[in-house]
Amino acid sequence: MALITLTTDFGLKDPFVGMMKGVIYSINGSVQIVDISHGITSQDILEGAFVISTSYRFFPEGTIHLVIVDPGVGGSRRPILVKASGHYFMGPDNGVLSWVIDADPAVRVIEVTAEEYFLKKVSATFHGRDIFAPVAAWLSTGVEPDSFGHEIHDYVRLHVPKITKGANYISGSVLYIDRFGNMITNISAGVLNHLMSPGISASNISIRVGGVDIAGLKRYYAEAVPGEPGAIISSFDLLEIYVYRGNASKILNVGKGDIVEVRRRNER
Amino acid sequence: MALITLTTDFGLKDPFVGMMKGVIYSINGSVQIVDISHGITSQDILEGAFVISTSYRFFPEGTIHLVIVDPGVGGSRRPILVKASGHYFMGPDNGVLSWVIDADPAVRVIEVTAEEYFLKKVSATFHGRDIFAPVAAWLSTGVEPDSFGHEIHDYVRLHVPKITKGANYISGSVLYIDRFGNMITNISAGVLNHLMSPGISASNISIRVGGVDIAGLKRYYAEAVPGEPGAIISSFDLLEIYVYRGNASKILNVGKGDIVEVRRRNER
Amino acid sequence: MALITLTTDFGLKDPFVGMMKGVIYSINGSVQIVDISHGITSQDILEGAFVISTSYRFFPEGTIHLVIVDPGVGGSRRPILVKASGHYFMGPDNGVLSWVIDADPAVRVIEVTAEEYFLKKVSATFHGRDIFAPVAAWLSTGVEPDSFGHEIHDYVRLHVPKITKGANYISGSVLYIDRFGNMITNISAGVLNHLMSPGISASNISIRVGGVDIAGLKRYYAEAVPGEPGAIISSFDLLEIYVYRGNASKILNVGKGDIVEVRRRNER
Repeated sequence: MALITLTTDFGLKDPFVGMMKGVIYSINGSVQIVDISHGITSQDILEGAFVISTSYRFFPEGTIHLVIVDPGVGGSRRPILVKASGHYFMGPDNGVLSWVIDADPAVRVIEVTAEEYFLKKVSATFHGRDIFAPVAAWLSTGVEPDSFGHEIHDYVRLHVPKITKGANYISGSVLYIDRFGNMITNISAGVLNHLMSPGISASNISIRVGGVDIAGLKRYYAEAVPGEPGAIISSFDLLEIYVYRGNASKILNVGKGDIVEVRRRNER
Repeated sequence: MALITLTTDFGLKDPFVGMMKGVIYSINGSVQIVDISHGITSQDILEGAFVISTSYRFFPEGTIHLVIVDPGVGGSRRPILVKASGHYFMGPDNGVLSWVIDADPAVRVIEVTAEEYFLKKVSATFHGRDIFAPVAAWLSTGVEPDSFGHEIHDYVRLHVPKITKGANYISGSVLYIDRFGNMITNISAGVLNHLMSPGISASNISIRVGGVDIAGLKRYYAEAVPGEPGAIISSFDLLEIYVYRGNASKILNVGKGDIVEVRRRNER
Repeated sequence: MALITLTTDFGLKDPFVGMMKGVIYSINGSVQIVDISHGITSQDILEGAFVISTSYRFFPEGTIHLVIVDPGVGGSRRPILVKASGHYFMGPDNGVLSWVIDADPAVRVIEVTAEEYFLKKVSATFHGRDIFAPVAAWLSTGVEPDSFGHEIHDYVRLHVPKITKGANYISGSVLYIDRFGNMITNISAGVLNHLMSPGISASNISIRVGGVDIAGLKRYYAEAVPGEPGAIISSFDLLEIYVYRGNASKILNVGKGDIVEVRRRNER
């Protein structure tokens, strides 16, 4: 059974997501649809890029991922279909797919132009329903990707917050805050391990965020006492700042984009 | 595969929607269930009527739509099953289905009375689970609509906000506000086109709402500058007031039911 | 078709629920997944226990229920698989499943230890995705429960708020507040009926909550006038305090754990 996922900033109050599903089922009655999130912060392209790039790998190869964070809908921005890492992705060409594009050197990006696969009447404000949903549904029935348009190479690249690092430190920033207030940074487990080796244990690093110093890495949340800030390798495989049984973002007054620094302690 | 949609004011925190799906799957294990919205404003029958009447057409013919906004649950209001425009609809007879009823002159409305299709124990407070869900599930297995009750003609009609119009103006109101703060009015694209023809372009109309005059219609959201109010034909095919990258309802301090007036400009 | 339900405190903004579904579909492409709730109050084990114990019976026998409210994730608490009342349940051994365990004297509780059914890489913070989802998916494909671990009897028991009662009164408390503000108590319909019999009608009892006395039981919500507090047997088969067209919890300023007392009126 084909699988289509949805990641949007549409929320769940309005009927927009339901309409998209109706369009998909009208074309392919036997597809399975999974919501990844409809709670992307309104028009936050970076957040959409983060969510899809960290989520798609948990789905079977061949899954079709619709990612609609689309402030330029109806204007000149192009709809694209991406084949990368064994998955399909569709969305506006505004950078929301650039992390999944960058992750695969053999990526193919197709500008979607074949109007015969769109709804007959295309609105100016809702291409998720009128273009992306029907094209995804036709793709799920076995229509070849190249039937929907032509390959392009000048797709939009998103500016992604980068880390800076030296022999003894890493400086990164908060990329995402989850519903518990946990703050996910752009510092990967791999980069952290590099800082710690050789012979530096996790207890010998120190993390500075929001004016507070956090000593070492915890192995699990409950290793911290309630109310105490801790650092851990998150399920995104990125450094995460949390407060056990508390909301780290609120308690530390730190938000997306704010700086997080990691240093070796007691350097000799 | 049969398709059942759900539109309710139950929200997603409580297990009510899940219980309804459990009842449906207990009767028909191979049905597909799609949520249209569970965020209808609590007990807002008009909002429920708007959402289902603008959404159902995106689903395949034969789809069964459950619409539960039901302040009179357990009292004397009747459960009804509606066949209209090639779709099935079920809900309380309180007007929530009257827009889909009015849209089809050949509509059939059946009062649902066949208790053998209800759950064995019917609560006084949750007919969505105890009556509507099981009847919809049995309908999806092929039970004939007439098996559930008898046709009625004295169903409840909802008072719907109407527009008034002259040769040079239309006066309508805000019908719905979406999660972005966009305000959907009851002024249809067809009525607007009539005002503009012959020979009046979209740039020659003016829209007054919340004490502000908006000139002309935009072709897409981003044609306005950020923070500027604009008017556009929405994906509902109704006149919509928006603020690009802003919340129009909050910025203009306009809510549901407030007046929106359209005039030809520079009349001679 | 196998059925898996999800009950968590993950919310719907983050991609956590979507990731779990991706893992499940990667193992069993033909399973059906139903969300019961992802809005359990963060880390509120009692609320999770209430929701699953009142919801599971509306699903077909053999359904697999995943219940993830897991403040101790990554620590020493054990993952368990429960077979009770013809259903399967999976979750952390922290009491969230103890109501479904207590309800079936023939219950079997298995500590899940068979790592070959986990994701290859298990994070410290998200066992819902890395352990519970894949084990549930393998179970849904027909793997025997005993393949996942060994039976235990020293599982965690949750302290549940109890009622006290005499010949003429029952004293209970508020267990759950739904999205309408209706307050569900731990006083069952059966216990209420016992208080009223013999020969005591529902109009002869009085309910005291939040400093207000409510006379008798209503048969349906709309029997009360708008704004008036009423008492009714809820769809959970428990005594419920509501305000017709209002939010009882806010109006009466009563929250979870607060006391509700029922007395016979005009005793002679």
